[in-house]
Amino acid sequence: MSLSALHKYRLQYKPVLPKHIADIDNITIEEGAKTQSAVNQKELSELFKHTYGLPICNIVAGKNADIHRVIRCGFILSGGPAAGGHNVVAGLFDGLMKGNKENKLYGFRCGAGGILSNDYIEITAELVDKHRNTGGFDLVGSGRTKIETEEQFATAFEHITALKLNAMVVVGGDDSNTNAALLAEYFAAHGSDCVFVGVPKTIDGDLKNQYIETSFGFDTACKTYSELIGNIQRDAISSRKYWHFIKVMGRSASHIALEAALETQPTYCIISEEVEDKKMTVSQIASEIADIVIERHKKGLNFGVVLIPEGLVEFIPEVKALIKELNNLLAHKKEEYSKITEFSAQKAFVCENISESCAATFKNLPDNIAKQLLLDRDPHGNVNVSAIETESFVSGIVKAEIVKRGIKVPFTPVHHFFGYEGRCAFPSNFDSTYCYALGYTAFILLALKKTGQICCISGLQKPAEEWICGGVPLTIMMNMEQRNGEMKPVIKKALVEIEGKPFKFYQSKRAQWASAEDFVFPGAIQYFGPSEVCDQPTKTLLLEQN
Amino acid sequence: MSLSALHKYRLQYKPVLPKHIADIDNITIEEGAKTQSAVNQKELSELFKHTYGLPICNIVAGKNADIHRVIRCGFILSGGPAAGGHNVVAGLFDGLMKGNKENKLYGFRCGAGGILSNDYIEITAELVDKHRNTGGFDLVGSGRTKIETEEQFATAFEHITALKLNAMVVVGGDDSNTNAALLAEYFAAHGSDCVFVGVPKTIDGDLKNQYIETSFGFDTACKTYSELIGNIQRDAISSRKYWHFIKVMGRSASHIALEAALETQPTYCIISEEVEDKKMTVSQIASEIADIVIERHKKGLNFGVVLIPEGLVEFIPEVKALIKELNNLLAHKKEEYSKITEFSAQKAFVCENISESCAATFKNLPDNIAKQLLLDRDPHGNVNVSAIETESFVSGIVKAEIVKRGIKVPFTPVHHFFGYEGRCAFPSNFDSTYCYALGYTAFILLALKKTGQICCISGLQKPAEEWICGGVPLTIMMNMEQRNGEMKPVIKKALVEIEGKPFKFYQSKRAQWASAEDFVFPGAIQYFGPSEVCDQPTKTLLLEQN
Repeated sequence: MSLSALHKYRLQYKPVLPKHIADIDNITIEEGAKTQSAVNQKELSELFKHTYGLPICNIVAGKNADIHRVIRCGFILSGGPAAGGHNVVAGLFDGLMKGNKENKLYGFRCGAGGILSNDYIEITAELVDKHRNTGGFDLVGSGRTKIETEEQFATAFEHITALKLNAMVVVGGDDSNTNAALLAEYFAAHGSDCVFVGVPKTIDGDLKNQYIETSFGFDTACKTYSELIGNIQRDAISSRKYWHFIKVMGRSASHIALEAALETQPTYCIISEEVEDKKMTVSQIASEIADIVIERHKKGLNFGVVLIPEGLVEFIPEVKALIKELNNLLAHKKEEYSKITEFSAQKAFVCENISESCAATFKNLPDNIAKQLLLDRDPHGNVNVSAIETESFVSGIVKAEIVKRGIKVPFTPVHHFFGYEGRCAFPSNFDSTYCYALGYTAFILLALKKTGQICCISGLQKPAEEWICGGVPLTIMMNMEQRNGEMKPVIKKALVEIEGKPFKFYQSKRAQWASAEDFVFPGAIQYFGPSEVCDQPTKTLLLEQN
Repeated sequence: MSLSALHKYRLQYKPVLPKHIADIDNITIEEGAKTQSAVNQKELSELFKHTYGLPICNIVAGKNADIHRVIRCGFILSGGPAAGGHNVVAGLFDGLMKGNKENKLYGFRCGAGGILSNDYIEITAELVDKHRNTGGFDLVGSGRTKIETEEQFATAFEHITALKLNAMVVVGGDDSNTNAALLAEYFAAHGSDCVFVGVPKTIDGDLKNQYIETSFGFDTACKTYSELIGNIQRDAISSRKYWHFIKVMGRSASHIALEAALETQPTYCIISEEVEDKKMTVSQIASEIADIVIERHKKGLNFGVVLIPEGLVEFIPEVKALIKELNNLLAHKKEEYSKITEFSAQKAFVCENISESCAATFKNLPDNIAKQLLLDRDPHGNVNVSAIETESFVSGIVKAEIVKRGIKVPFTPVHHFFGYEGRCAFPSNFDSTYCYALGYTAFILLALKKTGQICCISGLQKPAEEWICGGVPLTIMMNMEQRNGEMKPVIKKALVEIEGKPFKFYQSKRAQWASAEDFVFPGAIQYFGPSEVCDQPTKTLLLEQN
């Protein structure tokens, strides 16, 4: 395998451990009072008979002989990759090796699917050393399988027990950590001593709450996108003739778009949660951006950069309603519809068969977007939102609005989508250090036999030495939500809060950013330079924690 | 204006000057023998009566009082932005200030258009300091206007003379430097003492020859694209289910794609020049990649990364012929064609009205590409090649080939285009240093009254202190080519040489890269770290110069 120069150096990087967990011979866990979920206490306590309401685990100075107990630990990396996953494994491995040289670590291949197919590898020091501070989840691969059916739980039990594992770490987002909680409960209910600990991962940043300050991978992804957005902004002020519409990953929440906006100060950034909150229509969104295009044109600024969160269309109430009716229509009149081949006829058919208000919305959409809403059904009959070219959608409605107003304005849109580019970069120093500490914390929790916990580190706005690590019971973060027609326990996704500090800050600045040439150019992620360049957390985190 | 942390630090970076030009009180120019263009000597010597065949200017130790003469210098930044343009200005400015405190520097706004509209600003120390080591051309903006008509030359003469300029620097690609040569000739012919010096810019890397080792901006652009390609490769081996088709900028030549391939070792990289050289058909290209997809599938590797140069379709002989016939047809039967609205009817009409072989090619194209070839005519009636989604085209023909073979292979393509992201990044240390030296060399040449020269620096594979700077007459690089039906003097674009070392190296490795998991992850451009991470030139340059 050939390594780049940076790759070789990153393998040597040594993340700092938070002081209070560094010496494992002087730690123990102080348990808080029993906990409660915020809502649905009754349903959750029934579903999690053995693991509901566990206490919060604070890691404090003290002695605990269990830290050296022999552990056979398994883990999975689950869902979309996020920078730093390999450092979670490195922190976990180093902790295990400090605890007891006899300890073993096994990685199941390709997510929870590897548990079901009993596909695993032993993680050796050599393997870990080859992956320290590198991006990606390729050490064991990732996957999106969930353990859901009774049969799957039984299979997981069988394979994990056969491998004599007494600890499991689940690295994943809200769904995967929900799965970790269910596994913890299942194993506890079936008399297993195998404990389950979760680690909060997702570049989308939507696995966060009063205990989890941020999920790992968010920092690196946002910095990678911000690098590119900044480069494009510099191009915009050099060429002075393009309007760049940049879609960034993040389907359920707009944290990435908001963070990228805080880092780069674009001309405009759409926040899906605000669109939903204000019940904005397609035409209001178009109007708001068209105003800016026209105002800038008056000052000779025929260029700009607009950031768009991937999931936008589902947050526009009228489009959401339209998609719902379309899903229904295409499911129920599939045969009839499939005989129509020309778009104009398809459009007419659709408009006759949906509500008047939805038909009005549909007719007003740019053709390319209307076509995308008619294509691309997923196996469940739903429109494939990630395939919708939201960036063309937005530029299309803005152009139509300008034309409608009868004003002659040069408007040349250019479209971009940044997604895969940011999931597997070399983790920033922040993510490298954060993940290493998360893995190390996971080791402490499972050595001390804590199950159903997720690793939580607080004080992330401070230097890593001062971070405080511990465990928080997963059930505390759960509620009941409808999934495929059934009520299921799930960890609540954190959306951008309209009253939260990051959005409020953006809101206070956006008029200025829209009218001026006040772009910021963050540049590429730096790993070696001055601390203020290399080691800063996201603006979102700084605003939220300070 | 808000500055990022990296931005503040980059303003402080001090590029090293090559030793032999650092002390301007110990330099002079040693002229070589008269030169000749490689071809078209007769036509060129007639077109450039006063500036054809000038000697090469070597900068050597010695004394030359002219270095301190009073200079009123103008400059333009021309064409697409490239990282380092601001450092050319910084090097030029610092040279001018060393030469004589009375010296003045003026930047014409938005390229040659600024000369014609007499739109310029005085460049002050404060302005320069705000732009050192930053990306973009926003100091004065850029533009694509060329000075072509007799009237335009007269206007340029009037404005430059009125401003009492005795020196002009043209920063641009092959076309802009051709324009610089024409301006040098025009001013010499009209008795002006204003000298013209060119600086080789273009991220595409196609302004290079035995004198110019590389154009500036190529290094930074390739490193930015390689960062992203590497990230996507890491995602590919983590997710293990996507085939990424990545188009990179570079319409006329495939240098960027080739350099990115040398840096990242993708599964496959198409080189347009090879396609043309081997007269490859669409179906041969499809077949070559489909073979790789199927072979990898047999090993369980249902993923890969394919790099595609932006200009590919024009290098496929059968598509080139088809585009030519389509341009003709749509120009001559415009009215008749415009009445047909449905694609199937458009297709039928086209096939009836072009040659049989082109009709066969057209019928075999994926629909979305066929549609794009029918849309998007530029003002000259030509298809807008940069609007063609070549990345979908390639994945489309590969998919069709797999289907044709009747083999069941999971094949999920994902498409990317990297262009604007790489033009305005903070210049790499290489480009920062190279551009500063280019600007400083430009000052020396114009102070010593050399006109019609382009700044050339050699030995770029060595540390910057050892680089050798000088001037080479632009006419030496010219030939006559047909442009819009007329024979014009132009600097020959450098395509990827099939017999050159970079391509040969790629060729010797590609079978291995196609079959293995041998991706390289270059990571983000680093500015502060170890020299082997931060200061390396491109692989292309190293292979060519060593």
